[in-house]
Amino acid sequence: MTQSAAPQTSAPIGVFDSGLGGLTVLRAIRERLPAEGTVYLGDTARVPYGPKAAETIRRYAIEATDFLLDSGVKAIVVACNTATARALPEVEARAGVPVLGVVEPGGRAAATASREGRIGVIGTRGTISSRAYNAVIHSHRPDAVVLEQACPLFVPLVEEGWTEDEVTRLTAERYLAPLLEQGIDTLVLACTHYPLLKPLLARVVGDDVALIDSAESTAASLERLLLSESLSNTSGLSTPARYYVTDEAARFDLLARRLLGEEVDHLEVVSVDSTG
Amino acid sequence: MTQSAAPQTSAPIGVFDSGLGGLTVLRAIRERLPAEGTVYLGDTARVPYGPKAAETIRRYAIEATDFLLDSGVKAIVVACNTATARALPEVEARAGVPVLGVVEPGGRAAATASREGRIGVIGTRGTISSRAYNAVIHSHRPDAVVLEQACPLFVPLVEEGWTEDEVTRLTAERYLAPLLEQGIDTLVLACTHYPLLKPLLARVVGDDVALIDSAESTAASLERLLLSESLSNTSGLSTPARYYVTDEAARFDLLARRLLGEEVDHLEVVSVDSTG
Repeated sequence: MTQSAAPQTSAPIGVFDSGLGGLTVLRAIRERLPAEGTVYLGDTARVPYGPKAAETIRRYAIEATDFLLDSGVKAIVVACNTATARALPEVEARAGVPVLGVVEPGGRAAATASREGRIGVIGTRGTISSRAYNAVIHSHRPDAVVLEQACPLFVPLVEEGWTEDEVTRLTAERYLAPLLEQGIDTLVLACTHYPLLKPLLARVVGDDVALIDSAESTAASLERLLLSESLSNTSGLSTPARYYVTDEAARFDLLARRLLGEEVDHLEVVSVDSTG
Repeated sequence: MTQSAAPQTSAPIGVFDSGLGGLTVLRAIRERLPAEGTVYLGDTARVPYGPKAAETIRRYAIEATDFLLDSGVKAIVVACNTATARALPEVEARAGVPVLGVVEPGGRAAATASREGRIGVIGTRGTISSRAYNAVIHSHRPDAVVLEQACPLFVPLVEEGWTEDEVTRLTAERYLAPLLEQGIDTLVLACTHYPLLKPLLARVVGDDVALIDSAESTAASLERLLLSESLSNTSGLSTPARYYVTDEAARFDLLARRLLGEEVDHLEVVSVDSTG
């Protein structure tokens, strides 16, 4: 029995999501921190987490955490809004390495960026009903007015590839009208699929509304976290990006390429189900 | 050790789906066969099956079959296109009671109804890529021209409640244009959510295209099957409809009511995972 050693700075960053959406977060991390190796786990066998019970989501998140720890990661990014909202404390308690969710970075960035404190949040039904962004924004800016809107059609529209499309524009106008009528000056894209809609959403909301991309905010927070914990990779050594999924989803390649912005190499299908 | 007895005609019909979509099939069964008791199992903890590996889907379907058999059903309807396409032979081998999928009834009805044998099939990406309807239609009408189109946005549009909506009409026009250009005279709604889109789809395709509703075709086939197997309930006794889900999905009540067309009573959350 030995105590676990402090992680090496050359160890990779672990990133997990219920599916492939977290690849936009991975992409933002790789763009901002090109020296870091990464291990991505998409729990595609059990996607989506959103409609599942909190207890189920916690078990899945712990299983993903264990998988990443076994892969020798030095920090874990929970690149899934549902898992962050439902299971972040459990992942932190389990991990023994620094853990970052996607809610705090995006929420804080919005609280900081907003001129008037009138902040819109869009996400899946699960993320919005968790009210997790609302809580984070208010913790940084208690007087903020936070207007939340579930946009359940955005994920399938992104997955269909209709990111510049009349149907998507009409859908966005419908979803965003109540927020724009209430005079938001900042809009948080609180879903990992939404960065692909940024150009279209920017046109719908106009120049006076700042868009906060949770994926970019998370990458920026990760950079600060690694610096503060002296975990930045200064070794010059890095492992290639590795990708794991729990089930080879149909159209995996096309969708993954779209979300990641490049080809997905080093892909393996693994089982993380501790009951299996 | 005893041989299992022949099922009683007063025993219920078992219906299962990966989620709640199968409630449209249950609804069609209850409308056509009001004397029959029913047991519905929605495997909401593991929905959707579509993107999962065939082997995984087979295991889930067997677990659902075992659950329904333990509930004493006299016949099983696999009210899930994915499970029908991937696992019907395995369910039949396991069940020991008559089994009906949703593909054969809809495919046969289309083959029979079509004037010119030019048949469109719309469904989820998984159902279309299985080519299961294509095979059934050709088995009944070898000269048929079958044109298949995946419509992945239709399920979320139905779940959003936008069944009479400009966005949905534009989306339907987009999906159906290639089929209409090819001169289909019949269109199979090969997804359990699509019956709710029937009025809108009827306007988009026009009067010259016959719509085949798989849910109604399945109920009609079930009626014939029960008659031919002398299993119709003539006892005057019937159990109330029972509903089981494997995870209490968010918005279950609203969505279930919409799909079933009435309130869902006698609902229980159960586990069917044999590895759990």
